[in-house]
Amino acid sequence: MRSTAEPAAAAATRDAANVVALERLTSADPVLVAVGPAGDVVPGFTAETILTSGAPLPWEAYTGGQRRAIVGGVLYEGLAATADEAEERLAAGEIAIGACHDLGCVGSLAGIYTASMPVFVVENRAAGNVAFCNSFEGPSRKRLNYGVYDDDVRATLRFLQDVIAPVLAEAVRLTEGGIPLAPIMRRALTMGDELHSRNTAATLLFARALFAPLLDLERRLPDEVREAVRFVSDNDYFFLRLSMAAAKATADAARGVEASSVVTAMTFSCREYAIRVSGLGDEWFRGPLPTLEAKLFEGFTEDDVELMGGESVINETVGLGGFAQAAAPALQDYQGGSVERMVARNLEMYEIAVGEHPTLRIPALGFRGVPVGIDVVRVVETGITPTLDIGVAGRMGGQIGAGSARAPLECFEAAARAYAARYDGAGVEARPNASA
Amino acid sequence: MRSTAEPAAAAATRDAANVVALERLTSADPVLVAVGPAGDVVPGFTAETILTSGAPLPWEAYTGGQRRAIVGGVLYEGLAATADEAEERLAAGEIAIGACHDLGCVGSLAGIYTASMPVFVVENRAAGNVAFCNSFEGPSRKRLNYGVYDDDVRATLRFLQDVIAPVLAEAVRLTEGGIPLAPIMRRALTMGDELHSRNTAATLLFARALFAPLLDLERRLPDEVREAVRFVSDNDYFFLRLSMAAAKATADAARGVEASSVVTAMTFSCREYAIRVSGLGDEWFRGPLPTLEAKLFEGFTEDDVELMGGESVINETVGLGGFAQAAAPALQDYQGGSVERMVARNLEMYEIAVGEHPTLRIPALGFRGVPVGIDVVRVVETGITPTLDIGVAGRMGGQIGAGSARAPLECFEAAARAYAARYDGAGVEARPNASA
Repeated sequence: MRSTAEPAAAAATRDAANVVALERLTSADPVLVAVGPAGDVVPGFTAETILTSGAPLPWEAYTGGQRRAIVGGVLYEGLAATADEAEERLAAGEIAIGACHDLGCVGSLAGIYTASMPVFVVENRAAGNVAFCNSFEGPSRKRLNYGVYDDDVRATLRFLQDVIAPVLAEAVRLTEGGIPLAPIMRRALTMGDELHSRNTAATLLFARALFAPLLDLERRLPDEVREAVRFVSDNDYFFLRLSMAAAKATADAARGVEASSVVTAMTFSCREYAIRVSGLGDEWFRGPLPTLEAKLFEGFTEDDVELMGGESVINETVGLGGFAQAAAPALQDYQGGSVERMVARNLEMYEIAVGEHPTLRIPALGFRGVPVGIDVVRVVETGITPTLDIGVAGRMGGQIGAGSARAPLECFEAAARAYAARYDGAGVEARPNASA
Repeated sequence: MRSTAEPAAAAATRDAANVVALERLTSADPVLVAVGPAGDVVPGFTAETILTSGAPLPWEAYTGGQRRAIVGGVLYEGLAATADEAEERLAAGEIAIGACHDLGCVGSLAGIYTASMPVFVVENRAAGNVAFCNSFEGPSRKRLNYGVYDDDVRATLRFLQDVIAPVLAEAVRLTEGGIPLAPIMRRALTMGDELHSRNTAATLLFARALFAPLLDLERRLPDEVREAVRFVSDNDYFFLRLSMAAAKATADAARGVEASSVVTAMTFSCREYAIRVSGLGDEWFRGPLPTLEAKLFEGFTEDDVELMGGESVINETVGLGGFAQAAAPALQDYQGGSVERMVARNLEMYEIAVGEHPTLRIPALGFRGVPVGIDVVRVVETGITPTLDIGVAGRMGGQIGAGSARAPLECFEAAARAYAARYDGAGVEARPNASA
């Protein structure tokens, strides 16, 4: 399916480079090594930093729930006393809005990080790089990352910061060496998770890994230990932030492979979807927002849906989520569709991936490895874009459902053009119907 | 497919009776209420009782691994000093060999119970009846229930009796009201378990339910709590004995429904498969041993296989195991076969079941309820017998693999004849090719 206009030598160079990127993606060894405040543990994070999802935009471009979430972050951090003051300081550039990805972080939905928020620190022991993700906010539909900031949301964020994070930090410290996440993720794929919109098994396996250290903390922190056990046990999505940090640590290791056309990050803001490509440096290739098939909670309609950002698609970047949907038949209940469609979508992803993961495997597909390493060239050639399992926010804020989205082709076309321009290919041609 | 020779009135009576049996099978509410020594908690269990799997046989009929296991039980309980003495006392009838099912118990493989062995006490809150199962012996391939008794096996049984059981008993006591098993089982079916040969998720969910009470016991029993956390966490089959006790408590509630042709127990010894039917009292209808397709551990061949009994097929009796195989694609790795065959076998079971479970459901089948209530009439009419997920023992003792077995048609034919004789049916006729 390669364009005949492309020199064979360029294709061979790209294939070789993509093998290197694939090897980095599949050999990653993410380990949770610490839990601490973003301002303390994330290099470059200042007291006035607010991170949010998506390729960077000027402050005035943020709208709706993502804008409200940024303002909420400013208020939570005490950088302004009122929403108006927050908007003024943001407009004046006194508070720096950053892109999560640029500081090694990944944001869920609106993806707000402030300096005092606790983050999970995940080290990729295979490559030595580190990535971060903040914590799941709990089961309430109203959450800061879904564009809501009120007394309840603040109370939950404080509880995470003051009660849950310190005891988890102590527990991780007691493990000496941290908690390896790859074995949990491998196992969870055999237990009905696809590790994006379903993390039920992974959360249980992670909780089990915490049992022994939490027992050892019982006498020192009796109440906190019980709160942590309850919080981790009651929230099936708890592990999502760990799988995101693991995926970021994995994808980052594949950055900067000369001539590789493999995607190393996908993200969206309230305005744009964007991707980065291994051999194309730090440039974001931007396109329109993804299209969505959602299952909404009772009482909501499609008119209520608002895309307010999201970087949990880092998981799809490394072969999870939509790329492992066949592992998670129970997900149909949450995000709609049927098992047959989920399997079909999953199989389609093999068309655009450069390889299959040797250890992350899908029992329902005869233990076939998940498709991994999205190749922008293959995406453009086939017209197949990544399928994404995402949570869905509402215009009024809060979660209103979940669904299956499709990344826009335009980002991949832009990246493929840049790739051809840089790497001597005569151009990667889309199939006639690819953009249709 | 009903035999035209059968009066319509008899069929209508049977259908109505089977609805009652089905309702009892599907409304059960099994709760783990206690853990204690069989001699203390099982009514009718004496100091000289040894229970074993299968419809009762005279002592001289027990051979191979099941015979060795019975002797091992006698030695473990201190009822004889040597194997020879044990054999003499058994032959003399000084030690009573009983069928597990007759005391509300169910045995795994050879299924040995002695008075001092701890058992799980499971109450079916919907019907008020109680059932029991003893504990998983741990990961060693050498286990008493697999026909081995030596110093290692004895040490493990003592560890269960002296360390694990007492702390679990305390933990269950602390829950006040016990641990409901139905929610765990429902959930586990959405997480890749079929709750017979795969109990990975259920074990984790059960461990999670124990963690809060174990935390509360940490100061009183620090070492025992840690041992219990380790034992339950490290043994993915731990929950099997709880699902067996739950299944027994469920199936027993459906016994004695006048005119019902629903199976309420299946069991096998080293010699025979046998079933009981709701409307036919306590009679065992006996037939040959099941046929088996096994995946054996490295180094073993089919010649090494020995059927030495098994009552874990109580799980199939209530719609689990082979009747829920489509829920557990990862099982192909353990017992062989392919996802496609597992799904096909599972679908076949709907042909012989009187209904579908309202809450035990299979995501991969679009959340269809598991087939439940095996109807001996349908089995004989279709020639389809229950598919069974079982562990496989070796002639030298110990586990040598796992596989998918088929119950023999003869038991069902015998039961159908008895049913016709008792309930005025002109006879239930097998399809011409049914026995072929």
